[in-house]
Amino acid sequence: MIDFEKLPGGLIPAIAQDAATGQVLMMAWMNREAFDETRRTGRACYWSRSRGKLWRKGEESGHVQEVREMFVDCDVDTILLKVHQIGGAACHEGYASCFFRKVEGNGLTVVADKLFDPKAVYAK
Amino acid sequence: MIDFEKLPGGLIPAIAQDAATGQVLMMAWMNREAFDETRRTGRACYWSRSRGKLWRKGEESGHVQEVREMFVDCDVDTILLKVHQIGGAACHEGYASCFFRKVEGNGLTVVADKLFDPKAVYAK
Repeated sequence: MIDFEKLPGGLIPAIAQDAATGQVLMMAWMNREAFDETRRTGRACYWSRSRGKLWRKGEESGHVQEVREMFVDCDVDTILLKVHQIGGAACHEGYASCFFRKVEGNGLTVVADKLFDPKAVYAK
Repeated sequence: MIDFEKLPGGLIPAIAQDAATGQVLMMAWMNREAFDETRRTGRACYWSRSRGKLWRKGEESGHVQEVREMFVDCDVDTILLKVHQIGGAACHEGYASCFFRKVEGNGLTVVADKLFDPKAVYAK
């Protein structure tokens, strides 16, 4: 159903979009195991390249993503998840979306407000 | 400004989203050259992994993407483009979005209508 073999490590990009607002929240990676777990549990599960293991989004912060719908692209090698983001913030830096900086001229401008303080959420 | 070195080949994922409707249209790849050209011209330019060269989206079909805004994620290794899609269809298969199939049960279901016939557009 999905082509996991196009990129090294059997990883494909997975885009999470807010099911209600359409805001693009983040992009992460899935392997077959993460994809299967996501389908089985209805919660977004990615593959963490830095940690080299399954990343059950929200397992530390509580900010899980309830998956409403999943789509695949024409090449069956990219996933689009429509999710309900618990806690309202997908980004570990405290923003609703990881895309909180805009490219302007030769620099980046923060264009969103922080919804939580990362230190308070991750320092448990 | 952008970290192009995390993936082999200096490529990063670039997500194109319709600036007006919020629909996620496609995911493609950019290297530094594609990113710089996109900024310079205001039209989406990707890197085609299959063809091994710059892919000026719409160069064959005429369905160019006018870039309204660009964002980067927290890890500065993924791009989000908000675009105006000329012709209304981003997908080479004739759909508005490349994500025209939904994951349902153990299969995929087409959930969108074709806006053009690929044979008519690409057989020039």
